Amino acid sequence: MELHAMDLYIKSLIKEAGHRIRNSFSTDLVIETKSDANDLVTNMDKEVEKFFIERIRQDFPGHRVFGEEGFGDVIKDLNGVVWLLDPIDGTMNFVHQKSNFAISLGVYEDGIGKLGYIYDVMNDRLYHATKGQGAYCNDEKLAPLSETSVATSIIGINATWAAPNKYIDHEKIIRLLREVRGTRSYGSAALELAYVASGKIDAYVSMRLSPWDIAGGMVIAQEVGAIATNFIGEAANLLVQDTFVAANPSIHKTLLADYIHLK
Amino acid sequence: MELHAMDLYIKSLIKEAGHRIRNSFSTDLVIETKSDANDLVTNMDKEVEKFFIERIRQDFPGHRVFGEEGFGDVIKDLNGVVWLLDPIDGTMNFVHQKSNFAISLGVYEDGIGKLGYIYDVMNDRLYHATKGQGAYCNDEKLAPLSETSVATSIIGINATWAAPNKYIDHEKIIRLLREVRGTRSYGSAALELAYVASGKIDAYVSMRLSPWDIAGGMVIAQEVGAIATNFIGEAANLLVQDTFVAANPSIHKTLLADYIHLK
Repeated sequence: MELHAMDLYIKSLIKEAGHRIRNSFSTDLVIETKSDANDLVTNMDKEVEKFFIERIRQDFPGHRVFGEEGFGDVIKDLNGVVWLLDPIDGTMNFVHQKSNFAISLGVYEDGIGKLGYIYDVMNDRLYHATKGQGAYCNDEKLAPLSETSVATSIIGINATWAAPNKYIDHEKIIRLLREVRGTRSYGSAALELAYVASGKIDAYVSMRLSPWDIAGGMVIAQEVGAIATNFIGEAANLLVQDTFVAANPSIHKTLLADYIHLK
Repeated sequence: MELHAMDLYIKSLIKEAGHRIRNSFSTDLVIETKSDANDLVTNMDKEVEKFFIERIRQDFPGHRVFGEEGFGDVIKDLNGVVWLLDPIDGTMNFVHQKSNFAISLGVYEDGIGKLGYIYDVMNDRLYHATKGQGAYCNDEKLAPLSETSVATSIIGINATWAAPNKYIDHEKIIRLLREVRGTRSYGSAALELAYVASGKIDAYVSMRLSPWDIAGGMVIAQEVGAIATNFIGEAANLLVQDTFVAANPSIHKTLLADYIHLK
C-alpha cells in the first residue's frame, strides 16, 4: 500500500462523511434499536457506512470492508487489506447529545494496523496515525505517554462494572475506583481510545467491544506507547467481540494483575 | 441591579479570564492538594479567583464574593448582591486534560439567582442566563427540556456511588444504572449542569457539592425547566455543602422517590 496517498484519500473521505453527519441534524433521524432497547442505530449510521463502502469498492476494488452495520464484507480473516469501520461510534451520544461521537476507521494489511483514524465530528478533531510515523490530533503531534501510577490515573470505565455482574470481579473494580485519582465515562469507545492516546485519561476499560470500535484507535494508541489487550493480556483479535483495555504502559500490567479479573 | 449592563460586563470578564487560563498552558502549573490527594488546586485557580475579586471590588464595591479558593468574603447569608464563583471547576480535568473544565459564576440578589454563567473555556462555549429571559449557549437559545422517562435517560453520575458507601443506598443506585439508557461522568459539576440544561444528559447527581459549583448552573438550568434540589427534595442551600440533583422535570421526582436514598 502507498500509505501517504491513502492517508490523504482517507482524510478527505472522513471529512466529507463528517460534513454529511453535521448536515443530517437539520433533517429527522430514524432511530431503531438493535440487540436491546439501549443499543441504538439510526439511518445515518447506515448511510455513512454505505457512503464509505461505495467509495472504497470503487477506488480500492481489491480491499475488503468490515463495518458495524453489515453492509461490507463477511470477514473471517485479515488477509490482504481490510478496512474496519464504525461509521458512528457512540450512537447514543449522537442521538441524545448531537456531539461526543466519532467516525472510527482502521486500515489493516495482513493483520497489521497501518492507518488509524478517530474523527470527533462535532469538534472537528481528527486523531490519526500512520504506523511508525507518530500520532496526531489534527496537525498537532501527540506526545509519547509519560510515566504515571494507578494512584494518579484517570480511568475511563462505565459505572455498571462496579455492580455485581457475571463477567468480572466487581469487588476489584470497586477497589480500582477507590484507588485511582478519578474515573470518567464518555460513551464512545473510539473517543475514549483517542483520550488515552492524547493522555486525557490513562486507561480505558470495556467489557465488550467489536473490532470496528478499536481498530483505528489501536493504530493511534500504539504510536504513543499505549498498550491495548483483552482482559487476560492477549493482543486484540480483530475478528471477534472481546474485552478490552488500552492503557498507559506504566499501569497496564498492574491494572490486569490487581484490578480486572474475569470470572 | 441593572441586569443587562451587568451581563455584558460579566461576559467580558469571563472571556478575559478564559484567555488567561488558555495562555497559562505555556507556563508551568503549580499543583497542590487540598482535602485529600485527589482534591487538586493550582496557582491558576487562585490567580483567576483573585482576578475576578479585584475587578468586582473595584467596579461593584457593595457586592460580596463567595469563591472556592477563599479570597472573597466570609459569607453567612445571601443578603444584597453575592457573586458565587468557582474560577476553575473540574481542576483535575484542567491539570490532566487541559480541557473539560469551566468557569462557574452565579450572581444572586437577596438569595434569588439573577445571572448564571458556565464557561467551557477550551471549547469557547459560554452557557449563560438572565433570570426570566431564557438560557443560551453562546448565541444559541437552549430549548425547554422535553419530556423523557428514566428508561430513556442518560444520567451523569460517578461510578463510586455504585459501591457500598456510608452516604446512600448503593443497591438503589445499581438499579438506576441498570434501568437508565446510559450513564456518563465528565468530572466537572458545572459542565454537567450545563449538559442537563442543554439536554445532553437528563440528570446530574452528586453526593457533595459546594455553592460555587452550582450557583451559576442553577440559574441556567431553571430557565429551561430543570429542577435542582438536594437528595431529599429541598431547594439548594447556597451557604453549605450538600447533596445535589439537577434533572429534567419529568424524571426528577422519580429519581428521588425510587433511586436516590440517603442512609
